[in-house]
Amino acid sequence: MSVKSNLQIARSAYKPKLPTALQGPVKSIEGAATESVGNQSEIKELFPNTYGMPVVEFAKGDSKTFPQFNVGIILSGGQAPGGHNVISGLYDGVKSLNPNNKLYGFLMGPGGLVDHKYMEITPALIDEYRNTGGFDIIGSGRTKLEEVDQFEKGIEILRELSIRALVIIGGDDSNTNACVLAEYYAAKKYGVQVIGCPKTIDGDLKNSQIETSFGFDTACKTYSELIGNIERDCNSARKYWHFIKVMGRSASHIALECALQTQPNICLISEEVEAKEQSLDDIVSYIAGIVAKRAENGNNFGTVIIPEGLIEFVPAIKKLIAELNDVLATPEAQAVSRDEQIDFVKSHLSSANLAVFNSLPAGVARQLALDRDPHGNVQVSLIETEKLLSEMVGKKLAEMKKDGKFVGKFSAQHHFFGYEGRCAAPSNFDADYCYSLGYNASRLIVEGKTGYMSVIRNTTAPASEWIAGGVPITMMMNLEKRNGKMKPVIRKALVELDGAPFKYFAANRDEWAVETAYVYPGSIQYWGPSEVCDQPTKTLKLEHNK
Amino acid sequence: MSVKSNLQIARSAYKPKLPTALQGPVKSIEGAATESVGNQSEIKELFPNTYGMPVVEFAKGDSKTFPQFNVGIILSGGQAPGGHNVISGLYDGVKSLNPNNKLYGFLMGPGGLVDHKYMEITPALIDEYRNTGGFDIIGSGRTKLEEVDQFEKGIEILRELSIRALVIIGGDDSNTNACVLAEYYAAKKYGVQVIGCPKTIDGDLKNSQIETSFGFDTACKTYSELIGNIERDCNSARKYWHFIKVMGRSASHIALECALQTQPNICLISEEVEAKEQSLDDIVSYIAGIVAKRAENGNNFGTVIIPEGLIEFVPAIKKLIAELNDVLATPEAQAVSRDEQIDFVKSHLSSANLAVFNSLPAGVARQLALDRDPHGNVQVSLIETEKLLSEMVGKKLAEMKKDGKFVGKFSAQHHFFGYEGRCAAPSNFDADYCYSLGYNASRLIVEGKTGYMSVIRNTTAPASEWIAGGVPITMMMNLEKRNGKMKPVIRKALVELDGAPFKYFAANRDEWAVETAYVYPGSIQYWGPSEVCDQPTKTLKLEHNK
Repeated sequence: MSVKSNLQIARSAYKPKLPTALQGPVKSIEGAATESVGNQSEIKELFPNTYGMPVVEFAKGDSKTFPQFNVGIILSGGQAPGGHNVISGLYDGVKSLNPNNKLYGFLMGPGGLVDHKYMEITPALIDEYRNTGGFDIIGSGRTKLEEVDQFEKGIEILRELSIRALVIIGGDDSNTNACVLAEYYAAKKYGVQVIGCPKTIDGDLKNSQIETSFGFDTACKTYSELIGNIERDCNSARKYWHFIKVMGRSASHIALECALQTQPNICLISEEVEAKEQSLDDIVSYIAGIVAKRAENGNNFGTVIIPEGLIEFVPAIKKLIAELNDVLATPEAQAVSRDEQIDFVKSHLSSANLAVFNSLPAGVARQLALDRDPHGNVQVSLIETEKLLSEMVGKKLAEMKKDGKFVGKFSAQHHFFGYEGRCAAPSNFDADYCYSLGYNASRLIVEGKTGYMSVIRNTTAPASEWIAGGVPITMMMNLEKRNGKMKPVIRKALVELDGAPFKYFAANRDEWAVETAYVYPGSIQYWGPSEVCDQPTKTLKLEHNK
Repeated sequence: MSVKSNLQIARSAYKPKLPTALQGPVKSIEGAATESVGNQSEIKELFPNTYGMPVVEFAKGDSKTFPQFNVGIILSGGQAPGGHNVISGLYDGVKSLNPNNKLYGFLMGPGGLVDHKYMEITPALIDEYRNTGGFDIIGSGRTKLEEVDQFEKGIEILRELSIRALVIIGGDDSNTNACVLAEYYAAKKYGVQVIGCPKTIDGDLKNSQIETSFGFDTACKTYSELIGNIERDCNSARKYWHFIKVMGRSASHIALECALQTQPNICLISEEVEAKEQSLDDIVSYIAGIVAKRAENGNNFGTVIIPEGLIEFVPAIKKLIAELNDVLATPEAQAVSRDEQIDFVKSHLSSANLAVFNSLPAGVARQLALDRDPHGNVQVSLIETEKLLSEMVGKKLAEMKKDGKFVGKFSAQHHFFGYEGRCAAPSNFDADYCYSLGYNASRLIVEGKTGYMSVIRNTTAPASEWIAGGVPITMMMNLEKRNGKMKPVIRKALVELDGAPFKYFAANRDEWAVETAYVYPGSIQYWGPSEVCDQPTKTLKLEHNK
């Protein structure tokens, strides 16, 4: 018998809110034929059976009875708060259509489908996981469903379990693959539908149809709680600069949302660094400049938020890494002993990249030259960007001090927040949003849809006013180069520099830099005043002009 | 105008609970004369004016009027959640005695008293800070009040502001110094009382009179939230061992409380390591053994909680550090170049310490040999114990693999939680407890007490049943060696290996090691069911048999 915390026990009784349209029988209202966001003819050719389908919206409909059917569910990729509520919403939705319907979970990600590892989601099991964080009910995994062999192994078990539809909860890649699978099963007339669900704490799976990916809300609020606590400490002790890295390898949505929540002195946005073609020295000078300005006012403390992927967005570093990968892939490089590798690298880099290499702190340069991943590539993710930056800022400030341009003290602390938020118990927003996404998927299934993503819109309004429906996944696709080949993919949403969230940040950051304008969001609240418990992210509000 | 989060705004309306005895006029009930916990005759001689005073308890009394008086307050040392509530409790208490009373805050710690930096706490100011985390209302600092010069500088400003009593919020050292100051002012008949308040997230300021120091509750709950989230991630992804270091240089109360809250696979307790005279290899073998056992069951994941001070409790490391400090202090060592320092150190260590030095990972050994603090000492606090241990465990497992004793995979992630919790908004417990401590201090002042600590007991009962009063600080003292001299100090409370919290942990840890028995406490809740919002720590409950 597992021990539960008091919060787990009390929170399990929470009844997630559903859009009014889903609180009973639905009818589907179908729009016009759709087009993909890019490369229309190529995408159409690749997806002849799932291209051009209409957007679907649900409205209240007449009561109907449905024959018994079974559904499968898969969690794909990294954890995000609310995954269990997608499953409980799907479970309740499927049971509401016919109490004899069954829901099967494939274990440890898409691999469970291929390897025929699954379990039935029973009432007792689902009740254990309502409104909880994590993906531990069935586990997740990173196996990519891309090969015909996998699809064929999948159909064996789907037929054995009489599964009519498969719901895949994942990010952009997993939803792309869900659509490839939907297309394959449709082309083969296997009679199995595939529905996707937009998940990722990174917040980069969004577009004109999808307002936000689930988990972003809870993860950002958890990180913001911690950043706010650190800011308060920073403003009490008044002696440290805190360099805080937050998850987000591709997009900087998390860093930006945390900055909107906590108003730090500095927040770097990878997309801006790339757009402005900033060098590492530009970034370091920017930070050092603010440190010096605050020191003039007697404030030898501050907070800096850094997106995890920053370093790869610095054009000069990107080029250096590309050449390093090439240089180190040569047979000549392989033959060099570890001791000689740094000299070898230096003698083979172009002069521009050598200059960048030499500008890096010794530890980072050594790591870039020596540590390989299993594919032989430089391990950028191992670089502790927060320490790299604070070390370089420290050096810059020491130079400035000699010139009388810095009069204060500089002492740094470092933090990295990622795993701390990916499995937090979902906020009310994510609990409701995820439950609705799962419940909604059951309606897409009985409407016979495949190759659709479950979509809930109007999410800045109260949940009762949310709009439920489905969007053809092909509609979000274009062709992009992956490993040297053009592939159909869902376009990843990076931070838009002309979008409302970034513009709000950019308009305020100079004031936040010099003033101490910290905001302390505190821990996620599940009970209490609605303005505390039920707010969507600042990003969502700004994007929807609320 | 500062921006506030919705939680800050809503939470500012919270009315902290007071013990019934403090909800109106009080009378004091005095016990018998007290003795110090050790070295009675020496302590008595050092504190002739403040030794042997009775324990005081407050009960409901008759209404009285009090002449106007002023009070000063100081925040000393590291931040702890609830400091602002001690001040708001004191403020409300002082005003309830006479609305013309004034409260002055000395700025940035005890240094503010010496340097005459202060501000008046106004109604508008205190309302900004009710139920908030941090010490930013007046700032804190680490200046130690130990010298007669400081005491004399202090009395100047205390007289200038007509301050009758000074309340010092701090840990064991600060409260010791508060008592020294009380004794000095009493001996000089300066007419200024000094009252202490027990603060520290470390939880090591407790004894037969003080049940818990404030801030321990909130800090542990914040760390436990994060550890629980990581455990959930760990149990979802099933591929990492998370090594989580938590604050606590001296005592392991935080690590132990977090373990009681979250049931990790492993929690190390410094006091046990010292008592059992464990070597680093013993610790590494213990962890590696559990990793191997879990791997046998297919569980290549787990969580390890490590107290910050661990390394200094390993007797062999303690000896090594002591010899390193001696070796490196010699003029001979100072003359050696940085490049030769490691060889120099190796050639000068005793063979036993050399063996320990050689057993350390290269990076750690280098750091111990090269990095000095301003006093020339080895910088133990810079050692990333969580990485040191995981690196050594990895090596041990690689050896075990060769012998067929480890069949799994081992991949580690690292975390350190400290600043994330020291300034969290106080839990209901800390909000009530701190407010009561502050309010209670105002009653000790009008009772004419000096050299007392404000004490609230029976804290596992509802707040209305809490017992309020004061304890002479001398009662908690004994003599201990500090920098080579015997000094009167409050005895620090380490984790007792025969105490209920450790015994509960020890009785369960073998099961937690192999089973995955994680508990997910979730974020601190301020509203909602009482069993979620109002629980004291597991440590307190076990200590008081609840």
